[in-house]
Amino acid sequence: MERIVYVNGAYVPESEAKISIFDRGFLFADAVYEVTSVLDGKLVDNAGHMARLERSCHELGIKIPVSAEELVEIQRTLIKKNGVEEGGVYLQLTRGAESDRDFSYSEDIEPTLVLFTQAKQLVNSAIAQKGIKVISYDDIRWRRRDIKTTSLLPACLAKHAAHAAGASDVWLIEDGYVTEGGSSNAYIVTQEGTLVTRPLSNDILHGITRAALMKLAEDSDLKIEERLFTIEEAYAAKEAFISSATTFVWPVVAIDDREIGEGKPGPVAMKLRDFYIRTAREMAE
Amino acid sequence: MERIVYVNGAYVPESEAKISIFDRGFLFADAVYEVTSVLDGKLVDNAGHMARLERSCHELGIKIPVSAEELVEIQRTLIKKNGVEEGGVYLQLTRGAESDRDFSYSEDIEPTLVLFTQAKQLVNSAIAQKGIKVISYDDIRWRRRDIKTTSLLPACLAKHAAHAAGASDVWLIEDGYVTEGGSSNAYIVTQEGTLVTRPLSNDILHGITRAALMKLAEDSDLKIEERLFTIEEAYAAKEAFISSATTFVWPVVAIDDREIGEGKPGPVAMKLRDFYIRTAREMAE
Repeated sequence: MERIVYVNGAYVPESEAKISIFDRGFLFADAVYEVTSVLDGKLVDNAGHMARLERSCHELGIKIPVSAEELVEIQRTLIKKNGVEEGGVYLQLTRGAESDRDFSYSEDIEPTLVLFTQAKQLVNSAIAQKGIKVISYDDIRWRRRDIKTTSLLPACLAKHAAHAAGASDVWLIEDGYVTEGGSSNAYIVTQEGTLVTRPLSNDILHGITRAALMKLAEDSDLKIEERLFTIEEAYAAKEAFISSATTFVWPVVAIDDREIGEGKPGPVAMKLRDFYIRTAREMAE
Repeated sequence: MERIVYVNGAYVPESEAKISIFDRGFLFADAVYEVTSVLDGKLVDNAGHMARLERSCHELGIKIPVSAEELVEIQRTLIKKNGVEEGGVYLQLTRGAESDRDFSYSEDIEPTLVLFTQAKQLVNSAIAQKGIKVISYDDIRWRRRDIKTTSLLPACLAKHAAHAAGASDVWLIEDGYVTEGGSSNAYIVTQEGTLVTRPLSNDILHGITRAALMKLAEDSDLKIEERLFTIEEAYAAKEAFISSATTFVWPVVAIDDREIGEGKPGPVAMKLRDFYIRTAREMAE
């Protein structure tokens, strides 16, 4: 049976899910998105994702065409219709379609709202148990990475380069410092056991999972430093890992073919991953 | 009668022109585009646009699904079907639609090709006669502006800000220097009569109209300097102007509310505009 997706008010089979070629999401990447993970058929940290969606829309002047309650209702309907127990719900909102292509846009354009589910094993993840390899890669993205837009070509190219190099992902580098992963936040644990991650700014995405992890790290009495760090510091770290909505926490066991720590998932990463999954399960709704 | 557009092999009314929500052009801005202007029902400088399309595709590893001859045939068919005498043909090529959303892409994905015409008065342009006002604006785009991708949200936001400020467009500023316009190349004429424009690099689009204009400027014995220039130098210039496929040349008569020269279209800009239009007319095919 085909997956049922949501497009502008209608639930349709995925093969019929289409948008106009005049949609600004297609012509200008004039669009934002969110991915909320699903555990036990329930939404994880969804309030955080919806708050970030509102912020992205506010920054760009894109209107959300349905209420917060309706949005959650659509997410839940899709989970149910598709019988998703574990995975994610993707949501994309574009400024809308106009009658012709023009960089300028009117204020009263009707937005385009698209949602679909993706079934995926998140908890029992072989990758999480094994850890991933990443390569460092030039961060050439635009300067408002705090806004979650669909301008994702640089991330696609970076991940493609990583795969070509036998790695799973990238750690992006700007002015000598790690910004974040290809679609995740980046962390190291120093030899002294301090958790280090880049502070929030327009340079990185304000990860919802990152926020939850930082709280869990505090609760675990981990020493935390939010500061810039170089790739060389990462090479010399005891542990490294990434976080995102659909990976939760994935240990990084090698960067640029250099083993991190003992070259296997570290205890801090695995502990935070377990903590996060337990909390996410409890809080999912 | 509805405009007829081209989508993946089919000529369809624009209201039926749709693409899958799983198209990577929609989800990731994983797409390139070109706009060729039309004069007297003929394509202007199309070989240049098609060469740049090939270059963009080469840089991104996107395949062009039809031959160069077929592409021109599609452009001409659209011009004919829609009776376009003056305006442009827009072409967008995406990496294609996959069965699900994933940053990674396979090498054998089938690209999505979309073309449509836009009827517009280009030669008898009131704007060209009057000149435009621009504002300076932070250039926050990604670092491969030489590739003509659909990651155009920064340009949309910049132009929107310009309109809100009572101007038509922006001149983008990076590290103190003008890079280019919102969707055009930028030029000044110094008090000494030297034409100054930024040299080609990954920082700006390699304008097809720019290339033609530089040649015409040489033929006119204008002194040309391809070098960086600041916005202050632009304020103090004798003339300023922009070029692009669909504006040809538009004089800039004010930057940040400062009048440029005498605050009206300058002779160098108007002469180059006339030269360009005459040559374009002769060479169009």
